[in-house]
Amino acid sequence: MPCPCSPARWLRDFFSYETPKSVVVKSWVVGVVNRSVQLLILAYFVGWVFIHEKAYQVRDTVIESSVVTKVKGIGRYAGRVLDTADYVTPPRVTSLQGTSVFVVVTKQIVTENQTQGVCPESDPTFHCSADRDCQGPSPVSGSGVLTGRCIRYNGTLRSCEIRGWCPAEVDTVDVPVMMEAENFTLLIKNSIRFPLFGFEKANLPPPGSGVSLSRCRFHPELAPLCPILRLGDVVRLAGQDFPALATTGGVLGIKIGWVCDLDRAWERCQPRYSFTRLDGRAHAPASGYNFRHARYYRWPNGSEHRTLTKAFGIRFDVLVYGNAGKFGIVPTLINTVAAFTSIGVGTVLCDIILLNFLKGADHYKARKFEEVPEVGAPTSPPSPSASARGGLGGCSRDKQSTDSGTFSLGL
Amino acid sequence: MPCPCSPARWLRDFFSYETPKSVVVKSWVVGVVNRSVQLLILAYFVGWVFIHEKAYQVRDTVIESSVVTKVKGIGRYAGRVLDTADYVTPPRVTSLQGTSVFVVVTKQIVTENQTQGVCPESDPTFHCSADRDCQGPSPVSGSGVLTGRCIRYNGTLRSCEIRGWCPAEVDTVDVPVMMEAENFTLLIKNSIRFPLFGFEKANLPPPGSGVSLSRCRFHPELAPLCPILRLGDVVRLAGQDFPALATTGGVLGIKIGWVCDLDRAWERCQPRYSFTRLDGRAHAPASGYNFRHARYYRWPNGSEHRTLTKAFGIRFDVLVYGNAGKFGIVPTLINTVAAFTSIGVGTVLCDIILLNFLKGADHYKARKFEEVPEVGAPTSPPSPSASARGGLGGCSRDKQSTDSGTFSLGL
Amino acid sequence: MPCPCSPARWLRDFFSYETPKSVVVKSWVVGVVNRSVQLLILAYFVGWVFIHEKAYQVRDTVIESSVVTKVKGIGRYAGRVLDTADYVTPPRVTSLQGTSVFVVVTKQIVTENQTQGVCPESDPTFHCSADRDCQGPSPVSGSGVLTGRCIRYNGTLRSCEIRGWCPAEVDTVDVPVMMEAENFTLLIKNSIRFPLFGFEKANLPPPGSGVSLSRCRFHPELAPLCPILRLGDVVRLAGQDFPALATTGGVLGIKIGWVCDLDRAWERCQPRYSFTRLDGRAHAPASGYNFRHARYYRWPNGSEHRTLTKAFGIRFDVLVYGNAGKFGIVPTLINTVAAFTSIGVGTVLCDIILLNFLKGADHYKARKFEEVPEVGAPTSPPSPSASARGGLGGCSRDKQSTDSGTFSLGL
Repeated sequence: MPCPCSPARWLRDFFSYETPKSVVVKSWVVGVVNRSVQLLILAYFVGWVFIHEKAYQVRDTVIESSVVTKVKGIGRYAGRVLDTADYVTPPRVTSLQGTSVFVVVTKQIVTENQTQGVCPESDPTFHCSADRDCQGPSPVSGSGVLTGRCIRYNGTLRSCEIRGWCPAEVDTVDVPVMMEAENFTLLIKNSIRFPLFGFEKANLPPPGSGVSLSRCRFHPELAPLCPILRLGDVVRLAGQDFPALATTGGVLGIKIGWVCDLDRAWERCQPRYSFTRLDGRAHAPASGYNFRHARYYRWPNGSEHRTLTKAFGIRFDVLVYGNAGKFGIVPTLINTVAAFTSIGVGTVLCDIILLNFLKGADHYKARKFEEVPEVGAPTSPPSPSASARGGLGGCSRDKQSTDSGTFSLGL
Repeated sequence: MPCPCSPARWLRDFFSYETPKSVVVKSWVVGVVNRSVQLLILAYFVGWVFIHEKAYQVRDTVIESSVVTKVKGIGRYAGRVLDTADYVTPPRVTSLQGTSVFVVVTKQIVTENQTQGVCPESDPTFHCSADRDCQGPSPVSGSGVLTGRCIRYNGTLRSCEIRGWCPAEVDTVDVPVMMEAENFTLLIKNSIRFPLFGFEKANLPPPGSGVSLSRCRFHPELAPLCPILRLGDVVRLAGQDFPALATTGGVLGIKIGWVCDLDRAWERCQPRYSFTRLDGRAHAPASGYNFRHARYYRWPNGSEHRTLTKAFGIRFDVLVYGNAGKFGIVPTLINTVAAFTSIGVGTVLCDIILLNFLKGADHYKARKFEEVPEVGAPTSPPSPSASARGGLGGCSRDKQSTDSGTFSLGL
Repeated sequence: MPCPCSPARWLRDFFSYETPKSVVVKSWVVGVVNRSVQLLILAYFVGWVFIHEKAYQVRDTVIESSVVTKVKGIGRYAGRVLDTADYVTPPRVTSLQGTSVFVVVTKQIVTENQTQGVCPESDPTFHCSADRDCQGPSPVSGSGVLTGRCIRYNGTLRSCEIRGWCPAEVDTVDVPVMMEAENFTLLIKNSIRFPLFGFEKANLPPPGSGVSLSRCRFHPELAPLCPILRLGDVVRLAGQDFPALATTGGVLGIKIGWVCDLDRAWERCQPRYSFTRLDGRAHAPASGYNFRHARYYRWPNGSEHRTLTKAFGIRFDVLVYGNAGKFGIVPTLINTVAAFTSIGVGTVLCDIILLNFLKGADHYKARKFEEVPEVGAPTSPPSPSASARGGLGGCSRDKQSTDSGTFSLGL
């Protein structure tokens, strides 16, 4: 054998082109099956992957968002007139990465003028008949530290004495709800930015657009872009009943979704508001939302007092999420290649049909497979042994069948 | 046909090896195109996917992060000296999953000594000339509930009377800004952890590194790792003007990015600080950041008073994000296989050239495609009908062309 | 050449089926290698991708979550009895998108009855011997604005005079820790929802399940589902020492993971609690967690006082994450196709062996590659030049080797 090392020859070999040799079978059955499978795959890619899933776009769900909320309205509670500073807590809205949380207090159990001292516990589990009932470590559920004595609570009952903030809170009383809260309004100012695309927008109408901000009220169909929401509407749209929710308290989610196709006009990227209840639904144990807070007073004589409030309220969590897409050459290329590559998958199915179920399968096998014996043995023409290939034919029906199908694909 | 079911024969068939038969075309044109396309694809994978995108690494963007911030500085406002406890709200920093938010109050409109009672509304929209102007439901924008009477507001004007916290707030006055805030300093302590890699680091210099923490000031070029930032610098680096921002209020984002290649030295994983304004830019309607809060006082005689403050301030959102990569055997393998598989894509293009545009295309077609007639018909040698294959040739130019290209790829 | 344009003929060509022609090599060596590689790849897909990674499922990590927490317990500090409203801050728990943060204050340095005025600075760095030591701009670390005078601080020392809240805070005193906090309990109510699957669950036992909520205490092995946690246990499970942590303060993470296989029973989707310390570990500079806050008092005579508190505490960050999977037809199909496609990868390796290292490699090459000369040259039978193909053979050993391997794969 002459040495093939001359550079010219090496170059000629290197730049020669290798393409698989194909067998073309003029069979209507397999031909139609093959084209149908290809059409199906093509339809999936064009219809679902490209048109529906927009696989030609670069996607980004990372969003820089800022939420500022403002509640307005005047309520009446326990003989007083309350404004925003009274019933919204925290006053400055906690807002993190496009999220904002605040509570509108709708019901309060107020224990005024507490001071440090000793007094009877108010909770029924602390009722006692003698001092020995009040010994032992203080349970976590009490309002103070047990002194170990059983004292008179009211005309008929005796209760364990505690040391702590006195008088102890009685939180079993029935107090009314501030129903005006249903008509309070909530203004949400939300600015977003998709950093990948440098796209910025706010949920407020741009200045000079002639849209009056202060007049509108959000409505899912009639005014889906108005950023001023009536609290009663929010509760209703979350599928809840306002009086019930205001009584037990609860957590509502206001979701603002910015799902935008940035290949379209700037104006078509609009927020979508949706509403849901986030905390455990009714009838769950310990459902509802309440918390205790206190206001502290120190008087000129040095004495310290506090007003303890058990506040029930509706917590609103404003959650912002984004999902933007814009045409990109890389995902378009990758998905086009994937589509074309997948079209060949039909061959597996067709090979199985052709080599096993069609009349003349042996004949096709003989043409598709060219046997090469191990070196030393004489080259034989395509022999009947080929009938074992293609799997489902002959008696080797069980395991090899799938194997051979994939084998053909792999090659 | 003899039965091929003897186990030995079955085994022999199972372990025989099937490899596609190839046609090697000694054509310079197609050879060079083929190798060029392969080179291009290889360059893309090596240069972009592996070197630039580091596809050999396992990536994780999940980060456990803790942020603690501390503001220092003394300001003067309305005849008083204010410290951190006075102008930072909330006092303990709200911090969630690597995020931290606090407000530095720069301007306050204070309404002192309000009590529950009746008084004229201060807002100009409530000016009136007779009682009938003050009838009807109370608008949400007021400070209290309308009593229905029109009373004297000052020497010349009359205004509707309200019941609520009195005197009503006048928030149209022009108040100064606490300019000392520009020189306040902000210390950010940020510890992060990539749970997938068990990698931990903090933005503070390790103890004993000799770097003095208290002396440095952050500077984007000169001291990019110093965790003590001057508020004026933060505002400037976010592209804002301090006096203007302090007057209207606003929301600034301080982003700390931990983009780390963990295959490199531990010391090279360093935070990067960047600054941006998060809320709606200027000139937007209702821009700026302010909120109302109140301090409540109860005196020994039982009367309750409050000081209402409309506070304007700069809200700082400290946002931490992470993106770490480390060599992994699985992504390396997967991407290597993907690279090798993609190299074959060039064949589609070359097949189209070879079978349609090259001199002697029919000749190549006859060698590449071996026709097998349906069983029953006599086997014909490669015939001119093969010229319809390959798509772009002959008259079947429109639809079949792309189809046939992909067809060849699929096979 | 007759025109092949008759519609019938075109249709016949379009629906003919093309399948690659294969060479079947009856070689034990390559056959066994080929089947082994295929088995390996199949095992990887079945074992790892499908069974372990559950690639047949649609996955979602987006979770809608609501966390409500409640701390219970009575502590004693500085001669007073403290309850939840005293030591937990903020009172209403800040909770965002399945995250919840609150601080249990364990140590307080209280400076009572401060008023605006002048007084000596307490910090040792402000000690002075004459007025000139107190000139210049006020450093950010002080408690007020320097008046420029050096005055008597106590019996022996002199310190710079400041204007601000007086007396100045002395935060170097050693104060005790509220050790009762170790026995406080924390109730976590967590409701989650996987919006993609419409799956809802809470971490509380459903009503009527007979499980008593108020009696249990969380234990990692004995009661891993009890939602009531003892603070001391949380600290211990995070690997920390309670007295040390309560003294310096710190940030602990309580992670609730909902990793659920929704193809299984509803009951098997259960939360998993884990605990970790989030802030810089001990010995880091400026480690620990503390903050200053103030309570303001205004007296009938108009004077304003405040109580400044430097509070050390344990901040608890409750973090919720989710990862749910459910059978989906699309990922199943995609991964099955990927598995079958990957099985062909073994051919690359086998081709290299077959065409280079096996006895009779040239013979196999001649059968696999069918050379077609450029048009004009006479068709030659498979010639020795084929020995350059397959790469590792002959002398063209360096570059072409890998190239040719991939080449064969590509085809």
